[in-house]
Amino acid sequence: MATRGRVTVNPDLAKERANATFDVDNLTNFINGGVAATKRKRYLQNLAINDPELQDRKPWACMTREEQYETALRKHIHMNKRMEEMDITEQRDKMEYLGTGANHESSPIGVHTSMFLPTLQKQGTEDQKRRYLPLAEKLSIIGTYAQTELGHGTFIRGLETTATYDPKSREFVLNSPTLTSMKYWPGHLGKTVNFCILMAQLYTNGKGHGMHTFLVPLRDLDTHQSLPGVELGDIGPKFGYNSNDNGYLILKNVRIPRENMLMRYSQVLEDGTYVRPSNARISYGTMTLIRVGIVTTVSRCLAQACVIAVRYSAVRRQTEVSPGGPEAQIIDYQTQQHKLFPLIATSFAFYFTGLEIYKIYNVVNTSVEEGNLDQIGDLHGLSAGLKAFSSSSCCAGIEVCRLACGGHGYSHASGIPKIYVSTIPTCTFEGENTVLYLQTARYLMKCFTKVQRGEKLPGFVSYLGTDLTAKSTLKSDVAIDCLVLAYEHRAARMIKAAAMNVQELVQQGLTQQQAWNKTTQQFVWATMAHCHAYVVKTFAMRISNSNLDDKTKKVMVAVCKLYAVHGMLENLGDFIQDGFLTGSQVDAVTRKMMYLLEEIRPNAVALVDSFDYPDKALDSCLGRYDGDVYKALYEYSKASPLNKKDVLDSYTTYIQPLQRSSGTSSMAKL
Amino acid sequence: MATRGRVTVNPDLAKERANATFDVDNLTNFINGGVAATKRKRYLQNLAINDPELQDRKPWACMTREEQYETALRKHIHMNKRMEEMDITEQRDKMEYLGTGANHESSPIGVHTSMFLPTLQKQGTEDQKRRYLPLAEKLSIIGTYAQTELGHGTFIRGLETTATYDPKSREFVLNSPTLTSMKYWPGHLGKTVNFCILMAQLYTNGKGHGMHTFLVPLRDLDTHQSLPGVELGDIGPKFGYNSNDNGYLILKNVRIPRENMLMRYSQVLEDGTYVRPSNARISYGTMTLIRVGIVTTVSRCLAQACVIAVRYSAVRRQTEVSPGGPEAQIIDYQTQQHKLFPLIATSFAFYFTGLEIYKIYNVVNTSVEEGNLDQIGDLHGLSAGLKAFSSSSCCAGIEVCRLACGGHGYSHASGIPKIYVSTIPTCTFEGENTVLYLQTARYLMKCFTKVQRGEKLPGFVSYLGTDLTAKSTLKSDVAIDCLVLAYEHRAARMIKAAAMNVQELVQQGLTQQQAWNKTTQQFVWATMAHCHAYVVKTFAMRISNSNLDDKTKKVMVAVCKLYAVHGMLENLGDFIQDGFLTGSQVDAVTRKMMYLLEEIRPNAVALVDSFDYPDKALDSCLGRYDGDVYKALYEYSKASPLNKKDVLDSYTTYIQPLQRSSGTSSMAKL
Repeated sequence: MATRGRVTVNPDLAKERANATFDVDNLTNFINGGVAATKRKRYLQNLAINDPELQDRKPWACMTREEQYETALRKHIHMNKRMEEMDITEQRDKMEYLGTGANHESSPIGVHTSMFLPTLQKQGTEDQKRRYLPLAEKLSIIGTYAQTELGHGTFIRGLETTATYDPKSREFVLNSPTLTSMKYWPGHLGKTVNFCILMAQLYTNGKGHGMHTFLVPLRDLDTHQSLPGVELGDIGPKFGYNSNDNGYLILKNVRIPRENMLMRYSQVLEDGTYVRPSNARISYGTMTLIRVGIVTTVSRCLAQACVIAVRYSAVRRQTEVSPGGPEAQIIDYQTQQHKLFPLIATSFAFYFTGLEIYKIYNVVNTSVEEGNLDQIGDLHGLSAGLKAFSSSSCCAGIEVCRLACGGHGYSHASGIPKIYVSTIPTCTFEGENTVLYLQTARYLMKCFTKVQRGEKLPGFVSYLGTDLTAKSTLKSDVAIDCLVLAYEHRAARMIKAAAMNVQELVQQGLTQQQAWNKTTQQFVWATMAHCHAYVVKTFAMRISNSNLDDKTKKVMVAVCKLYAVHGMLENLGDFIQDGFLTGSQVDAVTRKMMYLLEEIRPNAVALVDSFDYPDKALDSCLGRYDGDVYKALYEYSKASPLNKKDVLDSYTTYIQPLQRSSGTSSMAKL
Repeated sequence: MATRGRVTVNPDLAKERANATFDVDNLTNFINGGVAATKRKRYLQNLAINDPELQDRKPWACMTREEQYETALRKHIHMNKRMEEMDITEQRDKMEYLGTGANHESSPIGVHTSMFLPTLQKQGTEDQKRRYLPLAEKLSIIGTYAQTELGHGTFIRGLETTATYDPKSREFVLNSPTLTSMKYWPGHLGKTVNFCILMAQLYTNGKGHGMHTFLVPLRDLDTHQSLPGVELGDIGPKFGYNSNDNGYLILKNVRIPRENMLMRYSQVLEDGTYVRPSNARISYGTMTLIRVGIVTTVSRCLAQACVIAVRYSAVRRQTEVSPGGPEAQIIDYQTQQHKLFPLIATSFAFYFTGLEIYKIYNVVNTSVEEGNLDQIGDLHGLSAGLKAFSSSSCCAGIEVCRLACGGHGYSHASGIPKIYVSTIPTCTFEGENTVLYLQTARYLMKCFTKVQRGEKLPGFVSYLGTDLTAKSTLKSDVAIDCLVLAYEHRAARMIKAAAMNVQELVQQGLTQQQAWNKTTQQFVWATMAHCHAYVVKTFAMRISNSNLDDKTKKVMVAVCKLYAVHGMLENLGDFIQDGFLTGSQVDAVTRKMMYLLEEIRPNAVALVDSFDYPDKALDSCLGRYDGDVYKALYEYSKASPLNKKDVLDSYTTYIQPLQRSSGTSSMAKL
């Protein structure tokens, strides 16, 4: 159960829960990975729920920018301390705890933990680690990862900040040589940090050696004042992330000692001699892990939006289904089911996909640590596209959930705007989605060339060798195996078409690059199809290989099929353009989708309950476990900053003069 | 030209403008409806641009909720006064003026002008109009239209507020009998208004007579304090519209005189006798006009987002197209063109559609005034679906524009988040989109039945009688006529399929209502297809019937075709499921789209320039006419409220203690 303790529940919601055909706890345990994991998760959630330091003094949306920053700083520093005291070190445990204590409130120390510390650990020398890690772990020094510049984001080679080695003083001289070279966007760079890891173009002995990382102090550790030569500040209000002081930084002849370059791989010797790293791909590790993590993260954000929209749709009644009859729960409308149930399925699909590729990441990472780099390309090809596909799909889904709540979805009281604006950056950061699709596309192009040459491919792209003249054997039962094959056929056909287009253009006399540039949109479509096939297959395998009890498994099979048939109908042209599916097979798929909506209907609330988010994490008047939405909305409204007084000062300034001038006061008692 | 006076323009943008193949002013004049209209528009824009009262003292996003409300109140009252002084009375003139002076800053007196005044004018008696209109026009009384309740939105019959007539005192007694009956959402109900037009269930002599409108004083005209029995306030922060004090209202035995019912149509006599109106459909007029207006409004909002994203894409350079070469303007990437150019086309498509249905509205309205109500159903069927289709398409497009700006699109500096959050409510208000699609669907179902019976239909649905066995004659030139026919074929087929599904389910024994309920999703798809066909056809006709010069016409034909082929590929399954288009025709359409992107490329900036939005209306660092985006971003950042001091007080409270405790101060000069 998502909310602890006994509560009086809205009768519509209570009825929904009583009518579910499966045991919610079984599904929750399956999601979490066992009874013990669920217990641990709830223990961590309760730590946050019951901590008086983590209660908000007013609704998040009612706070000013400054208050949001200060509140987030207070809460995150407190949680960091508590995690240290309680020895909470597992990434997953931290996510549960932080996600309950300050959900979707971007942490003003988050990049310190997710990027500054790991980079120091991975790229620092033993000496650097000994010196800085203990301080950084205690937050005595707080750092960020300063990569993105005003003029450059995803294209790292274009970054302009320079670090020029001066052998006389044995220092690097750091500069922002242009307006566009100022660092812009790094998390909590503006006000919070006193250090950063700086990405800069290294120059030594008159030669450039590309991007390297440097440890740079930015603020005085006694006074927190910005150091000489350092100009920095907050970049200003954003769509979301406003508790985070994403910052800008301009460096003017700032000198740091030679020892402040992170030299585990590349080195600059005292005389300025540059020593190159043995393998440049080593640094991909952190970014890949973050992209893998995004798949899980966005699935959880969508799941939260689904909890809110589905519970509210069970409570909200609107319009008589038959004239004079009672108003229906809006979840009973086919159109509402068609909006929300595929999104429940999407949350599960990407959650399981996230687990799967995390498993793969760990296998590859172990190989890499053992010096075997063979699979890095495969993992990169897989994770880049899935990061893009999962973030686009889940973010679009969150906005559908919000709109499915009608007018109240637009209020911050619904909690969904906060989820949306805090999730949507995943489409842009850690590699802009279109750029990432095209990175995976290049990988798929290579795979296709291997297939042409008769070479063997890793499991998740082996379908590229499939016989494209085959037709679907899908029958009216719409078996999941047939759906998986259809997705693979679609992807294989589209990847082949795109690759052939490049080859044909080259034969017509274009360069490889020109031909590629004219085929990128086709490759984006093909890569989406590839990712879609991977997700459908992974979801289907997770369910069929599971040890779920029969009742729960039956529900999850329906959810998995819904994901597949819905996606098929949304992209129908791709599946039928070459006649792989016939018109009557398409009719069967359409009927199946309508049938699945009806089949899932009685379990909709139980399915979102199984995601197991406590009210504190959802922070939503509409998504409350008890369904008491209208009272909650009224209470939310009363807390509005405009309601401090009945008559605002602006009345006297702007409205009263209009009335004084025209004698309405004689009507005052009208 | 969008920005007056001489400015130094970024060389990339200057080059774009020099390379355009058509004269921007010609297209601007075509959009506006002539040279005189353009002159008038610029005059009105300049009034706002040059008015010192309308300059913001800091960036909009840097203001607190209270400051946004107060700023909007100040500006809108000022503009209202100026419009009165300058005799600016045309709706279109007002839009230009207000849209430049306070773009996307929801007006705290907007509903007063758009709903309160017109309702008084249309539904008030002569006596009521004489008494209240002069005061309302001077803003001496400010009102809102209080319809939506906490528990009911689009379904008006479900509203619960009561007005019970008391013949003894000749008064109506107003009550909010339940928690869910409180009025919730009406614009500026919370703090600004002193009156409202209340929608309430009328009871007299023991009988209910459904929804009626009443003029209700809410605040004392001398003191602005809320009157006895009236509890009201702001509903709290929302996704957007935060300069608007959307409010809640609870009424407890509030008495108003009998004369305060708006009695032009229905009446309650002194003894409580109810006199019903001669025709209930009269009241549809205002709502239809607002829906018609939304089509134009959302097209303009998308156009603004396009201006920003396209100009920025011409200025932004990222990644080498060939290794070692210069970084390319991102607008040169096919994927970026595929995101943005169809959206430029979409803005035009809905703009012209808006003009067309406004023309139809005026024709129908004239008939109605003459007592002929025959066409009200047709107009309602047309406007409901188009409101839904235009708002969904344009809002989704705005978010695509934002994401196409990469990381900087996420900053409020881009201006696009403000456009998005102020436009997205159009999907929900004045009838939730899915509900509206289904209203048009019912109309289409009726039309289909008429076709089955061999009856004649009005022009814009006459295609329903088309021969569905025909195949497309589309050739490699992809003629616009063939595209229009394809869209009509698609819609006719889908409407027939949905209607037949209802008829079949009824034959199987379901009631009409049950059969309908199981076909609603299919009908939503079919209605979208219908609207899409209408928009494509209207766009094509506007261009082919235009008196544009050849060069401009050539560009606009390409833009129109792009709208059609892009929409076809996005919904490909619909067009090929029954074999209407062959695989090779689809290939021709795909090639055509890629070709059109290249054809439009040199004119992309000129096309968005033709929308003629001054910098003040765009309020965007990225969309500036001069392209000086990076300096603007830097200036925006410096204005952040967090940058008032180098070291914030929160440092001392939360961060300093972490450092004091671990001796980092010894490293202070590191």
